[in-house]
Amino acid sequence: MKKLVLLGSTGSIGANTLQLVADFPDRFQVVGLTAGSNNDKLIAQIRRFRPRVAALADEAAADRLRRQCRSRRDLRDLKIEILSGTDGLIRVAASAEADMVVSAIVGSAGLAPTLAAIRARKPIALANKESLVMAGPIVCEEARRQGVAILPVDSEHSAIFQSMAGQRRTDVRRLILTASGGPLLDLPLSKRRTIKPAQALKHPTWRMGNKITIDSATLMNKGLEVIEARWLFDIAPDRIDVVIHRQSIVHSMVEYRDGSVIAQMGIPDMRGPLAYALNYPERLPLALPSLDLTKVKMLTFEAPDLKKFPCLGYAYEAVKTGGTMPAVLNAANEAAVRAYLEGRIGFLAIARVIRETMDGHIPQAAPGLDDVLEADRWGRERALKMIQ
Amino acid sequence: MKKLVLLGSTGSIGANTLQLVADFPDRFQVVGLTAGSNNDKLIAQIRRFRPRVAALADEAAADRLRRQCRSRRDLRDLKIEILSGTDGLIRVAASAEADMVVSAIVGSAGLAPTLAAIRARKPIALANKESLVMAGPIVCEEARRQGVAILPVDSEHSAIFQSMAGQRRTDVRRLILTASGGPLLDLPLSKRRTIKPAQALKHPTWRMGNKITIDSATLMNKGLEVIEARWLFDIAPDRIDVVIHRQSIVHSMVEYRDGSVIAQMGIPDMRGPLAYALNYPERLPLALPSLDLTKVKMLTFEAPDLKKFPCLGYAYEAVKTGGTMPAVLNAANEAAVRAYLEGRIGFLAIARVIRETMDGHIPQAAPGLDDVLEADRWGRERALKMIQ
Repeated sequence: MKKLVLLGSTGSIGANTLQLVADFPDRFQVVGLTAGSNNDKLIAQIRRFRPRVAALADEAAADRLRRQCRSRRDLRDLKIEILSGTDGLIRVAASAEADMVVSAIVGSAGLAPTLAAIRARKPIALANKESLVMAGPIVCEEARRQGVAILPVDSEHSAIFQSMAGQRRTDVRRLILTASGGPLLDLPLSKRRTIKPAQALKHPTWRMGNKITIDSATLMNKGLEVIEARWLFDIAPDRIDVVIHRQSIVHSMVEYRDGSVIAQMGIPDMRGPLAYALNYPERLPLALPSLDLTKVKMLTFEAPDLKKFPCLGYAYEAVKTGGTMPAVLNAANEAAVRAYLEGRIGFLAIARVIRETMDGHIPQAAPGLDDVLEADRWGRERALKMIQ
Repeated sequence: MKKLVLLGSTGSIGANTLQLVADFPDRFQVVGLTAGSNNDKLIAQIRRFRPRVAALADEAAADRLRRQCRSRRDLRDLKIEILSGTDGLIRVAASAEADMVVSAIVGSAGLAPTLAAIRARKPIALANKESLVMAGPIVCEEARRQGVAILPVDSEHSAIFQSMAGQRRTDVRRLILTASGGPLLDLPLSKRRTIKPAQALKHPTWRMGNKITIDSATLMNKGLEVIEARWLFDIAPDRIDVVIHRQSIVHSMVEYRDGSVIAQMGIPDMRGPLAYALNYPERLPLALPSLDLTKVKMLTFEAPDLKKFPCLGYAYEAVKTGGTMPAVLNAANEAAVRAYLEGRIGFLAIARVIRETMDGHIPQAAPGLDDVLEADRWGRERALKMIQ
């Protein structure tokens, strides 16, 4: 029985994790949950999975939940401790009884709890990109020092991880990340300016949250994955390639020094990579349909067009520059995507905001955690000014 | 330094093995060679690689080579022992100083020397399909008893082997062998009868010997590979699928019980899988071009049409029947393909000869080596009678 702490239980990774726990009750148990704020989804999760502890980032929401746990008949018999704020998240992340921490908070808020879990020597199933994008060297150094495994949950990084099983790291020549290209792949540059969020949110192959779906439409998502892969697999950015693969069947690939390429494929369903991380190195008998390539018929591959997708180039630039630059890239992107989703800027402005924020940043080399968080704050502020 | 014995040095696998030895002189050394008969190619190989021993299947050819080694100025200073006949092949296969035996004899003649090498506890790089097709249970049982690894050299089986690295065998759900479909894939059934060997020998993606190229055109090659995979990976035939993949980029795949599919890809060049077997588990820095999927653009997959390719169905039938049936299938196919290449029968008659030979065979269960060799002899004779 593996005891899990789930950071970010109400998002899509959180929901899928809990689905796996429900499907394999003999293997997994949830001992801790965290969420941003209180809502019916979280209460339903607490009732069903009965964690010993939960934390809400929002203090008022945590208070409300505490009151509900005392007053509501269906919650009264639960033995649960409700914590709150960043300290609360960190305490849950470091729970003594946890065997593994699933890091599935969206955005930069995931960094501190993930680091706390590593310091508590918990193996990490990592879905929170930002931990590595913002603070890759800090997180990886801490994981190495504590002897903690970081198991990727992203389908692309899981594919690379699976394609490296049983192989020597020194034999790796190149990583090849695949990208569906998102919903706007074929839209000419001239028509991208006026794209409404509703259209940009129609992802062709994956169902994900809004932020990440817009990141797919700009290919920033792939850019962030390049940065993540750089740290996760300790490989220079110029040995990480991106190819457009519309069908999202090949989740990513590794080329070895003998020219051999190992690829991991499957129908696009995040339970696959998630279950691999949770139960590594054994695979679970998932009730997912087999991949029938004779029905898929065709897999296509194209080089990405950096004129159409400047954000991908910016991400490469940020990771090559290093220091605090990736944190600034990420912060500017978060601010710009939110503004776009709220109708405050146009689609092409996302890239412009990031470009100008990066141009205004003097990166600090070898930053500590505080420097990274300060760069994140600076990047957000600078981007917001530009947006206004 | 790994000391190699190369059984079948003058064929295409032999030539590629020696090319790798030449490319990596610090890693490999050839201590023994065998060939069918004497010729300039063999003499050039002996001069260049200076094995301590060589064997020729043909006695007269061996005598001639012995004389040449005494009389020819360019051979006189070689310290080489020349053996002959099946006994000679077996003695070379079991050479005390060999660290690995490359089994690359074409056809059923490869069986006895391969078994001899296993009995001498030599790890095997196996290119000779017939050892496993004819005598899979015997060869595998012997390898298990001796604790000997059999490393596949065929691109398909190497792909499966590579796709299983670091995975638990119990997690495997299905093997998926890819087949280019050969040179006649799109030829309608009505036009297949009159296909001349010259046309059937034009393989679209792989350069191989004549026998195996005709086997590609009938898909018998894939059928033999299904049988080989059944033994090599100890998996039931109904968990081995074949898909037509015209580009020969995905060399084969393994599906796991979580729905994940691991595939091995590369440009079609047999040095890749050969080098993997020779140097396993480390990969060699081969001077092969990288696979650029954005140039390949498209990978296609189709179900094979068993009406067009009855031989594939016969192979499944033979391995499911078991006992001596696969040996008879293989013998009838060898006889029929030779007759076709010599212009004695038409293309469609290849399948008919195999079908009728199988129909006339009463398979023996759990055969010993002698039974298998007798079934092989019987199958050849019966097929030849039909051909005449």
